[in-house]
Amino acid sequence: MERRERRQRRSTGEKAPLAQLPWKQPRRHFAPLRLLSDDQVETIHKASLDLLEEIGMDILNPEARQILSRAGAIVADERVRIGRDIVEAGIGTAPEEFTFHARNPDRSIRIGGNWIAFAPVGGPPNCSDADHGRRPGTFEDNANFIRLAQHFNCIHTAGGGSTDALDVHASVRHLRIGLNKVLLSDKVLFTASTGRARLFDGMEMARLARGVSPEQFETEPSVFTMINTNSPLKLDGPMAMGVIEMARHGQITCVTPFTLAGAMAPVTLAGALAEQNAEALAGLALNQLARPGAPFIYGGFTSNVDMKSGAPAFGTPEYMRAAIAGGQLARRYRLPYRTSNTCAANAVDAQAAYESVFSLWGAIMGGGNLIMHAAGWMEGGLVGAYEKFALDCDLLQMLETFLEPLDTSEEALGLDAIREVGPGGHFFGAAHTLARYATAFYAPMVSDWRNFQQWDAAGRPLADQKANAVWKQALAEYREPAIDPAIREELIAFVERRIGEGGEKTDF
Amino acid sequence: MERRERRQRRSTGEKAPLAQLPWKQPRRHFAPLRLLSDDQVETIHKASLDLLEEIGMDILNPEARQILSRAGAIVADERVRIGRDIVEAGIGTAPEEFTFHARNPDRSIRIGGNWIAFAPVGGPPNCSDADHGRRPGTFEDNANFIRLAQHFNCIHTAGGGSTDALDVHASVRHLRIGLNKVLLSDKVLFTASTGRARLFDGMEMARLARGVSPEQFETEPSVFTMINTNSPLKLDGPMAMGVIEMARHGQITCVTPFTLAGAMAPVTLAGALAEQNAEALAGLALNQLARPGAPFIYGGFTSNVDMKSGAPAFGTPEYMRAAIAGGQLARRYRLPYRTSNTCAANAVDAQAAYESVFSLWGAIMGGGNLIMHAAGWMEGGLVGAYEKFALDCDLLQMLETFLEPLDTSEEALGLDAIREVGPGGHFFGAAHTLARYATAFYAPMVSDWRNFQQWDAAGRPLADQKANAVWKQALAEYREPAIDPAIREELIAFVERRIGEGGEKTDF
Repeated sequence: MERRERRQRRSTGEKAPLAQLPWKQPRRHFAPLRLLSDDQVETIHKASLDLLEEIGMDILNPEARQILSRAGAIVADERVRIGRDIVEAGIGTAPEEFTFHARNPDRSIRIGGNWIAFAPVGGPPNCSDADHGRRPGTFEDNANFIRLAQHFNCIHTAGGGSTDALDVHASVRHLRIGLNKVLLSDKVLFTASTGRARLFDGMEMARLARGVSPEQFETEPSVFTMINTNSPLKLDGPMAMGVIEMARHGQITCVTPFTLAGAMAPVTLAGALAEQNAEALAGLALNQLARPGAPFIYGGFTSNVDMKSGAPAFGTPEYMRAAIAGGQLARRYRLPYRTSNTCAANAVDAQAAYESVFSLWGAIMGGGNLIMHAAGWMEGGLVGAYEKFALDCDLLQMLETFLEPLDTSEEALGLDAIREVGPGGHFFGAAHTLARYATAFYAPMVSDWRNFQQWDAAGRPLADQKANAVWKQALAEYREPAIDPAIREELIAFVERRIGEGGEKTDF
Repeated sequence: MERRERRQRRSTGEKAPLAQLPWKQPRRHFAPLRLLSDDQVETIHKASLDLLEEIGMDILNPEARQILSRAGAIVADERVRIGRDIVEAGIGTAPEEFTFHARNPDRSIRIGGNWIAFAPVGGPPNCSDADHGRRPGTFEDNANFIRLAQHFNCIHTAGGGSTDALDVHASVRHLRIGLNKVLLSDKVLFTASTGRARLFDGMEMARLARGVSPEQFETEPSVFTMINTNSPLKLDGPMAMGVIEMARHGQITCVTPFTLAGAMAPVTLAGALAEQNAEALAGLALNQLARPGAPFIYGGFTSNVDMKSGAPAFGTPEYMRAAIAGGQLARRYRLPYRTSNTCAANAVDAQAAYESVFSLWGAIMGGGNLIMHAAGWMEGGLVGAYEKFALDCDLLQMLETFLEPLDTSEEALGLDAIREVGPGGHFFGAAHTLARYATAFYAPMVSDWRNFQQWDAAGRPLADQKANAVWKQALAEYREPAIDPAIREELIAFVERRIGEGGEKTDF
């Protein structure tokens, strides 16, 4: 540890620390954008109810079918037709806003209302950086992304899935990564619903990390899971299990249908949204039947495909519109809203940036509460990229600044400064300026504002090259967060025991 | 001409034409964003009135001072203190929305209300492209940008100032460029208020191009000018002349204070906005005194500087907030609102893209009606860039798609398609998809959606390289718009006569 710190200090040299904003959770102080009229929201709502009642969903988990059947759903083999009364009964019981507890209480966050939380990219099998290129992710890369998510104050969750750790056996991967997450980070946790052991191991690590009793844990949301449906209208076994078990344990479920218009959903946005909404509502119904009042997040991920090639597209105008309409639907049900920062680009070029900012535009204006993949996502989710992570953190900090309320107090108006300077003067030396200049404006980490001649003399660095230096500096500055030694030992013992037991059986 | 067309045809080869959206003016179908409360808008309004009444403005034009003095303003040397009654009298007389007439009536546009018009970059002395680098602009470059602005349907004005033509003498430059504008384009026109001859020559060419009488011209807005104040609180002679003369001739004035917070305006956004608003209102008062009801556009350009270097910054969070607050102020006065698509980047990299999309976010959500510099702006306005022009046109088309109302008709919902496909299926072959796939989604010109392996095999083209091919194809596809031969002769004769007379005297 000490050697690491020395090495880090040496490698940072005399560099000023990264210009980070302090840890804080941004809030939206304006009404989210409405692309749909109230009537249109109701039209989509009604279409979703029709879909669930008439067609139903294939749900590949016997217990889930039993729960829905007991509530009155019509079950035939795996097909479950869910009547509108069952769906409507599930609306309004989940909390509109709740606290998501981290092991460090200072890192607990609010989900819902006008709160915004940014989570790092999750899911990519690969990673990339400018020095070593694109490659399958390793345990060390995975750990580095946990460190980046911990170090950047604009990231509000622990991450841990920004690239897969393909050098660790799948049966115990969640345990080794899980231990990293609770030791390398003190932010809120995620557990994967890709198997019973993975789900429960993740819950138990979250409980142990917080040092709370099972009883307290079940009343305090301390871990979340992401449920992806197999659109159209299909929910696989482990995912359905997760919807039920997370509710039973008072933990957070987010159901996010993967409704790519033209592929897994109708080629029209309205159709894709109706399908998204039907699947999310089915998840909500099952979740609230398992435990009314369990914390639930409405997930939207509707985008389109390239109709020439079938390739998924992200950060498109269709994506933006779906993200905003999705927020209107989530608020129709008084649920927190999850959306994402996505792109389809293969390089950290102009395309990556415009697709990402368009995504964020949809997310922020759409009233997103939990913004997944907020940093590091590339290639439609196939790659977690170090440079993109750093660049995205700059974008997120810009958004945090954008979201600050605008101060129009007498001091902020500064009429005295204008009197002092007078017509034709300048404000560089005004007292009003000197008192504020150091913190008046957001100072970006990546953007290069030198004039052309200075930039040319510096070797014409592009944004991705500047981002390369930023993530390296972030890793060098990173420090492991404090943890109670007893809790640390308990976590290590738990993981060692579970590894000894074989973790999640992967002989499928 | 024929040889040119043949060459063009050869150079396009068998390429499919650029995937352009048809000519149309987008509209905003949602309420613009409100960052300021009504009270805050009034606070800024009142602060602006205080500034004009107490400090006043330096106005370097005797006639302008006389007009304001006659209305009751207190004049001492160049300083003009404008009472709030004078300012208030100028509010509400200019039209909230009007038609801006092009020589081709199909290219006339609406300014104000929920209409949006995109204008190309104006003002840079330099230009750049990937093949020949950064260089002072020439007459040929200037003409190429007019052709690009004409060819791209998402651009709504003729441009003509996307790079200066430094190889043409300043005294006659406006005449030679002006002739290009009316011959190479049939979109709405701009005239520079940098001297009496330039202003009047521009007005006369706009009139001749439309083939209308002076009387008709004065009732139909057919040309616009941009008035930049010398912030803080100073209006130079030619600009003040433009404010008066454009009104007298029923033409369009846009007053845009250049209020960089920390340099020409207070370091606080509220202060910079109060100063911007004071200067815009002074321009409005003068303009409406010269002719009540003249078409007037409220311009906002508040951004910040890098407080370390003094360099202007663009597309920043401060810029976005100012753009949105500026829209609230413009609507307070029921005036059309001008804003911009800006960036400070030196290359068409990720920074250029995120600064531009952040600018556009502020412009679109802020209710911008005339979005200047919408395509081609680089380096804080010092360079008009060919690749950026093409890339921006892709962004503008994406925004046009984003701005389309969302169809939730029964056909759009496509429940029958979902019934047809059923749980677990896919929509690629559904009848609903086949009937719509060709036009269902926006097909970008620049974005590369190939997967990594295909993109790698193609040589890993970045967005700026793809944009290089797009502007070249646009120039190859470009055709000169039709014009009445008699009008053409008249325009050429006018320009030849005015060149013979020496154009604008430049011996200052």
